[in-house]
Amino acid sequence: MPDLLTPPVAQPWFAHPAAALDSAAEAAALARQATLTKPPGSLGRLESLVVRLAAMQGRERPSLERVRIALFAADHGVAGEGVSAFPQAVTGQMLRNFSAGGAAICVLARGLGAELELVDLGTAGPPLDLPGVRRAQLGPGTANLARGPAMTGHQVAAALAEGRAALVRAQAAGAQLFIAGEMGIANTTSAAALACALLGRPAADLAGPGTGLDAVGVGRKAAVIERALDLHGPHLGEPLEALRRLGGFEIAAMAGAYVACAQAGVPALADGFIAGVAALVAVRLCPGAGDWLIQAHASAEPGHALVLAALGAQPLLDLGLRLGEGSGAALAVPLLRLACALHAEMATFAEAGVSGKVP
Amino acid sequence: MPDLLTPPVAQPWFAHPAAALDSAAEAAALARQATLTKPPGSLGRLESLVVRLAAMQGRERPSLERVRIALFAADHGVAGEGVSAFPQAVTGQMLRNFSAGGAAICVLARGLGAELELVDLGTAGPPLDLPGVRRAQLGPGTANLARGPAMTGHQVAAALAEGRAALVRAQAAGAQLFIAGEMGIANTTSAAALACALLGRPAADLAGPGTGLDAVGVGRKAAVIERALDLHGPHLGEPLEALRRLGGFEIAAMAGAYVACAQAGVPALADGFIAGVAALVAVRLCPGAGDWLIQAHASAEPGHALVLAALGAQPLLDLGLRLGEGSGAALAVPLLRLACALHAEMATFAEAGVSGKVP
Repeated sequence: MPDLLTPPVAQPWFAHPAAALDSAAEAAALARQATLTKPPGSLGRLESLVVRLAAMQGRERPSLERVRIALFAADHGVAGEGVSAFPQAVTGQMLRNFSAGGAAICVLARGLGAELELVDLGTAGPPLDLPGVRRAQLGPGTANLARGPAMTGHQVAAALAEGRAALVRAQAAGAQLFIAGEMGIANTTSAAALACALLGRPAADLAGPGTGLDAVGVGRKAAVIERALDLHGPHLGEPLEALRRLGGFEIAAMAGAYVACAQAGVPALADGFIAGVAALVAVRLCPGAGDWLIQAHASAEPGHALVLAALGAQPLLDLGLRLGEGSGAALAVPLLRLACALHAEMATFAEAGVSGKVP
Repeated sequence: MPDLLTPPVAQPWFAHPAAALDSAAEAAALARQATLTKPPGSLGRLESLVVRLAAMQGRERPSLERVRIALFAADHGVAGEGVSAFPQAVTGQMLRNFSAGGAAICVLARGLGAELELVDLGTAGPPLDLPGVRRAQLGPGTANLARGPAMTGHQVAAALAEGRAALVRAQAAGAQLFIAGEMGIANTTSAAALACALLGRPAADLAGPGTGLDAVGVGRKAAVIERALDLHGPHLGEPLEALRRLGGFEIAAMAGAYVACAQAGVPALADGFIAGVAALVAVRLCPGAGDWLIQAHASAEPGHALVLAALGAQPLLDLGLRLGEGSGAALAVPLLRLACALHAEMATFAEAGVSGKVP
């Protein structure tokens, strides 16, 4: 007998289901691939990629002209533990650099003709007011996760919602592909701690050099993460609570954006260690989110391999990048676009009068 | 005492030395990399790549706007041994498809804004006369290398010279990067046989599925190559003679083009198994040629790994392609261009007012 007395509990938005892939468009794209003037399978991963994009976009011939990159910046209280090779002031300084167009992701966005949106989720020091930067300051960075929860319940909810809002703006601008980038001194420590919690691994498996720690620095970082895992241990079984205690504003925003991409049916291109951990949070909050994520680049950060294994994903590129900012994803955009062009524009065997395989 | 009586023997053009790299431009590029607003080394292989391009182009900030792709097509007598999954007529049919703009490399060249030159070095059947295709027909394909030498001395010299001529035309058009593509049914058999000769390996190590042979087909192909190695064995010690006996018109043209690139100081971007074997020929003919070659893509053809190891090169991409046509090299062009843009356009720490690493 159904329970008619207990009032239903409303699911939070990020637990709503992901959109379904379009299996008819997928089948049509697969059928078209078999007719193109090339040996079957000879375009390798470009073939499965374009078929997947067809399923995502619901059309036999997908297109990725309009690409949106949202860059989320935030500071981390755990920087006070000496876990980064760069001083904490660099987060705000780099926001200035993004605003002025001088950072790597600015150059890449220009080169790709992609829109770049900058979101300041909160940096240490006085709040910034920079041209072209959206102010969504949730605090002067997170609290130090080695001494208490990184975020309040309000902050983690607001950060997730900021990610969703970025996707809503991207979609309104007609984006056919969404990239989330990040900047935040000490955020590999936060991401590694969160990955430890989500994967049930010790700190030594996930702590890496980040922006350039030496072995002693990596050891110190691992010890800080181990301390945080001990402190928060009993509360880490639930992904949202793990995110609140160990994550960062930008990591939560990326996770929110990935979930929103999946719910809205927009392909998301992810790269690197921070984005990978945010993707892991996204699929824990909304299991169907993985269908809408494409992994662009394998980070030089050693923990990324474990995160990718948990996501069941193999990235397209492995160029040794460890910069963040969404740079690895941006570099993969031309490959995706060329895969779409090949699929749409190549002649078929029939059109070209070319013989097929010997039976 | 110097020998003043014996007249000097003129070296063939392809044995002339390669151009020297510009170590001053290389040092300047390396110094600039260290000033850009990113953790040192965080752009991974893009950093070493752009420094290498600087050394090649003799400028601190290299540029790759003008890219030339030369596609060399030719038939192979060894196709008569049943070593390909496709009938021999496909070479000529694909030349028509290239001419009409419907093949993969045509789509990629358009997407990159690269110039595509098509060179017909000789196909089986009546000579073709196709719009936009340069006629350099050296014969109706090579002779069957399993029964005798694939080429005459005149043919191999003419094919090498056709490669050089393509580079000369590219250079006259201002090309800053040269890609050589190929098309020729049965050319993985020719390339594998040639690689066996150059590397001193048995056929089983180099014979692969090509355009899509099954295991029985690969076994037959290996047996054909083994037979050819037995037949030509005593004459394979010298690379030019190995090329003449086992190579193809397009393989020789690619080798000639790579040597000419190195002599003229034009970077060459190579991909895949056939191009890799042609690169190996080039460095055997002109040892400095390797300095001017960048490997773009690791072929799904299993023998490519041995060829790359002999070249001491690690390709940029590994997307499972096995199409040929220069498609893997074309796909890597955006990465090279974005590496150049990052190097030229990123702000320095001083310009952006960003703090460096904690000492």
